Amino acid sequence: MSTSWPGNPLKNIQSPPPADIEINQGVEPIPIKDLCQQVGVKDDEYELYGNYKAKLKLEILDRLKDQKDGYYVVVTGINPTPLGEGKSTMVVGLTQAMGAHLRKNVFATLRQPSQGPTFGIKGGAHGGGYSQVVPMEEFNLHLTGDIHAITAANNLLVAAIEARMLHESSQTPAQVFDRLCPKNPKDGKRTFSKIMFRRLKKLGINKTDPEDLTEEERARFAILDIDPTTLTCNRVIDTNDRFLRKITVGQATTEQGHSRETQFDITVASEIMAILALTTGLEDMRERIGRMVVAFSKNQVPVTADDLGVAGALTVLMKDAIKPNVMQTLEGTPVIVHAGPFANIAHGNSSIIGDKIALKLVGSEGFVVTEAGFGADIGAEKFFNIKCRYSNLVPNAAVIVATVRALKMHGGGPEVQAGIPLPKAYIEEHLPLVEAGCANLQQHIRNCKKFGVNVIVAVNKFTTDTDAEIELVKKKAIEAGADSAILCEHWAKGGAGAADLAAAVAAACEKNRKEGSNFKFLYPLDIPVKEKIESVCKNIYGADGVQFSELAEKKIAMYTNNGFHNLPVCMPRHICLSATILN
Amino acid sequence: MSTSWPGNPLKNIQSPPPADIEINQGVEPIPIKDLCQQVGVKDDEYELYGNYKAKLKLEILDRLKDQKDGYYVVVTGINPTPLGEGKSTMVVGLTQAMGAHLRKNVFATLRQPSQGPTFGIKGGAHGGGYSQVVPMEEFNLHLTGDIHAITAANNLLVAAIEARMLHESSQTPAQVFDRLCPKNPKDGKRTFSKIMFRRLKKLGINKTDPEDLTEEERARFAILDIDPTTLTCNRVIDTNDRFLRKITVGQATTEQGHSRETQFDITVASEIMAILALTTGLEDMRERIGRMVVAFSKNQVPVTADDLGVAGALTVLMKDAIKPNVMQTLEGTPVIVHAGPFANIAHGNSSIIGDKIALKLVGSEGFVVTEAGFGADIGAEKFFNIKCRYSNLVPNAAVIVATVRALKMHGGGPEVQAGIPLPKAYIEEHLPLVEAGCANLQQHIRNCKKFGVNVIVAVNKFTTDTDAEIELVKKKAIEAGADSAILCEHWAKGGAGAADLAAAVAAACEKNRKEGSNFKFLYPLDIPVKEKIESVCKNIYGADGVQFSELAEKKIAMYTNNGFHNLPVCMPRHICLSATILN
Repeated sequence: MSTSWPGNPLKNIQSPPPADIEINQGVEPIPIKDLCQQVGVKDDEYELYGNYKAKLKLEILDRLKDQKDGYYVVVTGINPTPLGEGKSTMVVGLTQAMGAHLRKNVFATLRQPSQGPTFGIKGGAHGGGYSQVVPMEEFNLHLTGDIHAITAANNLLVAAIEARMLHESSQTPAQVFDRLCPKNPKDGKRTFSKIMFRRLKKLGINKTDPEDLTEEERARFAILDIDPTTLTCNRVIDTNDRFLRKITVGQATTEQGHSRETQFDITVASEIMAILALTTGLEDMRERIGRMVVAFSKNQVPVTADDLGVAGALTVLMKDAIKPNVMQTLEGTPVIVHAGPFANIAHGNSSIIGDKIALKLVGSEGFVVTEAGFGADIGAEKFFNIKCRYSNLVPNAAVIVATVRALKMHGGGPEVQAGIPLPKAYIEEHLPLVEAGCANLQQHIRNCKKFGVNVIVAVNKFTTDTDAEIELVKKKAIEAGADSAILCEHWAKGGAGAADLAAAVAAACEKNRKEGSNFKFLYPLDIPVKEKIESVCKNIYGADGVQFSELAEKKIAMYTNNGFHNLPVCMPRHICLSATILN
Repeated sequence: MSTSWPGNPLKNIQSPPPADIEINQGVEPIPIKDLCQQVGVKDDEYELYGNYKAKLKLEILDRLKDQKDGYYVVVTGINPTPLGEGKSTMVVGLTQAMGAHLRKNVFATLRQPSQGPTFGIKGGAHGGGYSQVVPMEEFNLHLTGDIHAITAANNLLVAAIEARMLHESSQTPAQVFDRLCPKNPKDGKRTFSKIMFRRLKKLGINKTDPEDLTEEERARFAILDIDPTTLTCNRVIDTNDRFLRKITVGQATTEQGHSRETQFDITVASEIMAILALTTGLEDMRERIGRMVVAFSKNQVPVTADDLGVAGALTVLMKDAIKPNVMQTLEGTPVIVHAGPFANIAHGNSSIIGDKIALKLVGSEGFVVTEAGFGADIGAEKFFNIKCRYSNLVPNAAVIVATVRALKMHGGGPEVQAGIPLPKAYIEEHLPLVEAGCANLQQHIRNCKKFGVNVIVAVNKFTTDTDAEIELVKKKAIEAGADSAILCEHWAKGGAGAADLAAAVAAACEKNRKEGSNFKFLYPLDIPVKEKIESVCKNIYGADGVQFSELAEKKIAMYTNNGFHNLPVCMPRHICLSATILN
């Protein structure tokens, strides 16, 4: 689209690279309004948040609805280890190479990091070395407030649930009805608000004047009768605060003994974060928020945010969060940072809206490189089976990141601890450990191939890796079916260090488009829940079968009875691990 | 300064005014970048947050350091009632009158509202009728994320406190020292971080190499020995969630039995919010955050954020929040919205930095109108004794807002409840109730006069007020020493309805500058704490004296022993009320 896509190769690269922060602050970013113009965003289609961040309006999708999408690339990794494989750094380095070196139109699309890990041992998620998002403090801290908006919306919802349970327990149905639908002080008349008609419809009450409801109908309308043991929505906070993992709330005397055990979750693990990542627009988000099942009634009827009448307020709190954020890399190539659901419990991918806008902006010959959280088992499986299913976007290639160090660990290398010097095996050549660890990489390659995508293995070079170790990884990757395996040095050299990878990815994408995509999901939506779970466990985790506990059987039955059986399955990490044990 | 200060009188005013939201959304705001230019902010001195909000950089104060300040006006009120007196609406209406009708340079400076009241019965704080800040949803919800940044900073601090208490209880002093000051895995050497030298200095340890510390010094350095019963810093949330008023945290088995009772406060009641409102710059904020006393040790030594080593991280989280936010009124006059400490427990005023920048931008003949929260007893007393003392700014006039309805309530009128029709006394003429209620207004006038400022009473007209009632209020105000008393109809008519008030305020300010200010504090800082408390109680609340409980005596002694006796006193509402009982 644009003939002058932003991208400036780094100059004065030092070896070894200085500290991340020194590199990050040593670059003068392009004013983000200039960058927006350069990628074809019109003046009234973005909103600045300071000089280096902007939000993109969803109207871009309307304007470009006839534009053909660019190539779509997902970056995933081998099983994560404390040593890190550098997936985010790889996405940044690959797009720097594509944009500033191969001079292609390109966007990286990343998740917004949580402040929990940022202030913990893990640190920020802005990349590293000469492949970073700038300015790192904007990226890692508040960004434009999206996670804060989710916190506010989620906690308003929980406060509404708690207050409702208290009122229902301390008032008669008629009193609760009065509270929800009071007489207007001026004319003494009651009216239903717009949102209430959703609940009336659900109850099959076809009346528009509150006064026409019978006593029994008023009670059904007003009383949600929530079973507190079924609450699925916890309060959230974006701080790593271990003392909130198990708490008791409602201990003030004003709460009349309605205390209960609960917990705070980290904000990025909330359902509203998952909604932000999956939604396709404001109206869709409103509907998804309204459908959220927050608990079940004592009669096992799902209770939703719409039943509570708060979905409109939550949507208002999220009205800016839905707009994707634009930043840039060290080499001035554009990055969308939007949504950040945790992969261990949610689907672990950045937003569909961000990817859709980026795919239009880069044009049909451009590239969008996104990251799937965690390893290819958890993150990429959900990218394919969940994100791509909802977005209708078809990936042209998958990049699997591997490091010699992490493979050595998977191969049985000694334990590693933060703050303790690395054992010798990780800093000296050790081919047997690498070879043993390649079993992990090979399984991920085979897993990705099951979705019908081309796989490029990117070996992220650490300074201590030897040539023989790297050659071994490449050989093993090709053996397992990878379309290519490329050494990358973007950490040490910026985009220039990933130029070979960029060329290989571009070639794979072009070949894929020319030959036609073989992309497929692992399972269709219209099979029973158990079969979907079995499909993931067998295909991805190598399980021979799945045993369902009594609780699991009960929950699956309840979900099925309530019509949730036609959704894709999103399996949290610990379920995956339990499944693996059956192998 | 500017010859074309922004301000456009409203057209097509309807009577009665339509709903607030209809008026608010019916106006097309000036792009905030245009407004910034019109008030003399240079292009590199503001950061846009969308099209209608901007942050002002503190560098403006350096550039304009030789500019003479404009006139400084504080708006306060009679004792608040559920009926509302319309202080925020008055500030907005007065500045609309000053700017769009009298064509003077003017800024309103307001507090950022908390989402707690916004989603509660009180609603937003954007004003009302034809005197509002636009767009109201930007003003009332996230604004630019300042309150969210405070939440994040405060909760990171509390998480650090909890984690420290746990580690100190489960590890030896040598282990905690190791954790704080670990050996570098590469060279085996320990180094102190910059922030640690603050604690070393406090302990009187004059060494720079951690290895030089004796075992006893290491233990003193590492062990804060916090007494959990003295913690003064609670977690915060900006949601009205009654179930968090009393909770037990740390009940997970991983916390090894270290559960404790605590509570969440509303974010705007946090010390970090108070710091934001009082600070004069980034370095000052860093120092204030570091000095925060979060608890006392078991030996009654104050434990600060600097002792915990987290003040740098908290300051980084607050680096954007310190920049004041610019918005506008319905009539296009500029508004600064910055900081919002609750007046019932903190000092209840918008930020010093916001006022300082506004006073420079309006120029020596311009006006800055700010609001002091709650009534003149609580909000204005703290405005004068605390905010003006720290800012060195001298107010030229005080406006006290009164309504006939609220005065009737103070005069013994019937109780009022949300959702129930107003009793007759409030909607029909009732002079005896008004007269009795004027005692409240008169006391507030006398209180303000004690600070040596001119007082203008603004009677905020409601549609049901009669001429006789309004004349009575004006007469009683003048009797009590008000310099003038003016009827205002800005709710119904916009700035045009407050033009008389604006003229009176301008005249009072000009007279004050010409004749010289008599402004004074109620008490000097170097008298004992008890005398300061007595001064406020006797002068403001009409107390005959103050009785100090045993706990109060103990706390005052502890504060004095720790050198905190030279600070102004900030009395929360319930203490004020207890003091009043002695009257």
